[in-house]
Amino acid sequence: MSTQRSGPPTTPQIDGERLWSSLMEMARIGPSPNGGSRRLTLSEEDLAGRQQLLEWTDALGCESRTDQAGNLFIRRPGLENDLSPVAVGSHLDTQPLGGRFDGVLGVLAGLEIFRTLHDQGITTRRPLELVNWTNEEGSRFAPAMGGSGVYAERLSLEDFRAAQDRDGICLGEALDQSGYRGALTRHDLPLAAYLELHIEQGPILEKKNLPVGIVSGVQGLRWYDITFTGDSAHAGPTPMEYRHDPLMAATAFVEAMRKTVLDDAEGTSRLTIGDFQVAEPSRNVIPGAVTLHVDVRHTDERALQALDDTLRAHVQAAAEREGVNANISVLWHMPVTRFDETLVKDLSTAAEALGHQPFSMMSGAGHDAVNVSYVTPTAMLFIPCRDGISHNEREDVEPAHCAIATQVLCDALLRAANRKG
Amino acid sequence: MSTQRSGPPTTPQIDGERLWSSLMEMARIGPSPNGGSRRLTLSEEDLAGRQQLLEWTDALGCESRTDQAGNLFIRRPGLENDLSPVAVGSHLDTQPLGGRFDGVLGVLAGLEIFRTLHDQGITTRRPLELVNWTNEEGSRFAPAMGGSGVYAERLSLEDFRAAQDRDGICLGEALDQSGYRGALTRHDLPLAAYLELHIEQGPILEKKNLPVGIVSGVQGLRWYDITFTGDSAHAGPTPMEYRHDPLMAATAFVEAMRKTVLDDAEGTSRLTIGDFQVAEPSRNVIPGAVTLHVDVRHTDERALQALDDTLRAHVQAAAEREGVNANISVLWHMPVTRFDETLVKDLSTAAEALGHQPFSMMSGAGHDAVNVSYVTPTAMLFIPCRDGISHNEREDVEPAHCAIATQVLCDALLRAANRKG
Repeated sequence: MSTQRSGPPTTPQIDGERLWSSLMEMARIGPSPNGGSRRLTLSEEDLAGRQQLLEWTDALGCESRTDQAGNLFIRRPGLENDLSPVAVGSHLDTQPLGGRFDGVLGVLAGLEIFRTLHDQGITTRRPLELVNWTNEEGSRFAPAMGGSGVYAERLSLEDFRAAQDRDGICLGEALDQSGYRGALTRHDLPLAAYLELHIEQGPILEKKNLPVGIVSGVQGLRWYDITFTGDSAHAGPTPMEYRHDPLMAATAFVEAMRKTVLDDAEGTSRLTIGDFQVAEPSRNVIPGAVTLHVDVRHTDERALQALDDTLRAHVQAAAEREGVNANISVLWHMPVTRFDETLVKDLSTAAEALGHQPFSMMSGAGHDAVNVSYVTPTAMLFIPCRDGISHNEREDVEPAHCAIATQVLCDALLRAANRKG
Repeated sequence: MSTQRSGPPTTPQIDGERLWSSLMEMARIGPSPNGGSRRLTLSEEDLAGRQQLLEWTDALGCESRTDQAGNLFIRRPGLENDLSPVAVGSHLDTQPLGGRFDGVLGVLAGLEIFRTLHDQGITTRRPLELVNWTNEEGSRFAPAMGGSGVYAERLSLEDFRAAQDRDGICLGEALDQSGYRGALTRHDLPLAAYLELHIEQGPILEKKNLPVGIVSGVQGLRWYDITFTGDSAHAGPTPMEYRHDPLMAATAFVEAMRKTVLDDAEGTSRLTIGDFQVAEPSRNVIPGAVTLHVDVRHTDERALQALDDTLRAHVQAAAEREGVNANISVLWHMPVTRFDETLVKDLSTAAEALGHQPFSMMSGAGHDAVNVSYVTPTAMLFIPCRDGISHNEREDVEPAHCAIATQVLCDALLRAANRKG
């Protein structure tokens, strides 16, 4: 037992070097040109990654099953195997030019915990389950988080299987050929709890110089298409006062909405304009129409609704200023996700016991854990990633952060798996 | 002589109905689907339009010549034919879905003046010249205003001839086959003065309910490409304070520049953002780069320079606000054109003598007259066009305005052609 730790004496210590080795070994499967990973969902490389994982867990005496979405459930028996298991997991699939840690870390942290328990002959009360969710990234087959979506019954199996890649291959077809298509559903595979370790994919932990963050939930978001329609006219002969310029309405809206978001005292509002499309652009023509793709996020559902109200008022004011029309379409509303308080506390307690600040944060990105949280008590743990970069071959993390987080995850997992009741 | 007119008793009166008839007759050559005109430069329809014009002027005993750019010079002899002629003109070519008046009015107003003088047996001191410039529109062959550009030696004959249409046909090739390629240059065809009547292509005269505007010059303009470059990042996990968002810098710039232009007391500044390009747009990604196409105009060259200075300061401030980089490229600088004071006064005097307010204005659009003004004393006259619309099949004008303007043009032309010295 480490002298640096103050946790309960029975807490087993994970092997940070072994964890890092398995991360590097997995990265050798489907390497991308510049040091990242390319294991597109159900590609040869993704299947080789699954195969590698199964070889490792087979060596620990674990058994695996797949559900109808190809999600891989690897079980480590407990003392009371009639109880539903406590799970850890994430995903092995990557972006086309992805990093070596996004998703992979959560799966291999689970592997490291299984190995540690195996080495030390520890058996938990509840069985444990290591889960590899199918098609988290959504790069080859849209939408993302598909496997966990089917598990949680938030995406129909039919829609999941119908998604096509660029070559016209259906996900269902690829799944049938992969050998990972099972018959089980979440009713056959109920979980008592689910914990997921992931890289932050943002800059906060790095900026705050923290090794881990306890994720208490996920921001809600709304996606809008906002179109301003005015009168296209010649740039030269049309005085400013006679114009109905939708582009100037759009810039007025963006500036006003930006101010609203920056004025948010808690600083958890986020505004992103992903695209600013000018209809039939011409260098010396006042545009006739402009469409914005707007992404608004907040950690509080009521605040998100308030932002929606403000957005509509700003659009109206901007349209009136320029004498143009405006149309707002809401494409997606993902409510704020609140993770399970007991599990969040388990993670916080574990971090604190290891001498780390139990820094609470909300995830900005979606994860399989969001889907799972609809049917299972769930929480997440983040580690910093260099410069906040992910979905990029340059994605990088510190081995020490991986080890610390995996230890926190292990301790919280044991706490949940051994909890009475 | 009309009892409504107070001009000199020798002033002949043009025939407004005949003018309108010839406009309608020309519109039957190359009609577009929805009541406009389609006579692309040196197309079959454009050549048929030229042929129609020549038939009409042949009937008046006029002779025609072409220069090396295919510009058509139709001469009506004067009393002193060794003197350089005074010219009127414009262009018969149109946009692909153009109107019936843009350019055509200026040519057929000249025809109407020639007919009036012919009918009334009037001979001017200087000879008169009716000019149809080649390729004003630039739709089939870029750049626009090519024929007048070659005449004024502002565009090389080589570049003019090299322009290709979508089918890979060179303007030079089309010109050689048209029969309108001449050998003359402006040194063989010097003009003592040039007057051009055109539709305004803007809303000012219509809004002010005026039948004519005396054009004292043309706005100067500068075209910029402004690129803001920041850091692309995920919309969700990146707090506002850690962002380097080039789109927000671009909107800040547009809003600041708009305010500068609207604060212009004289109201002659103009700002148009013709395009707002987001690099690799994605709905939930902060863009990495944004490029604006910016068109700034003013009627005063020093004010245009001041706008350039302010634009650079606004770009700098916007880039600093967002912590992004900015790059400004100037693609084109067209200085302010000032037309000939004597000719502008001739037009004003003629308008006033006919009981019309000699409303002075600057053109917002470029015209052949801008090129010609570099080598010849030049002025222009505008009439309103409905809703300020041009380059559109819906382009429309009032017959009464055509008649009034042609009378003003006739009177000013005679004044210039008969002037001593």
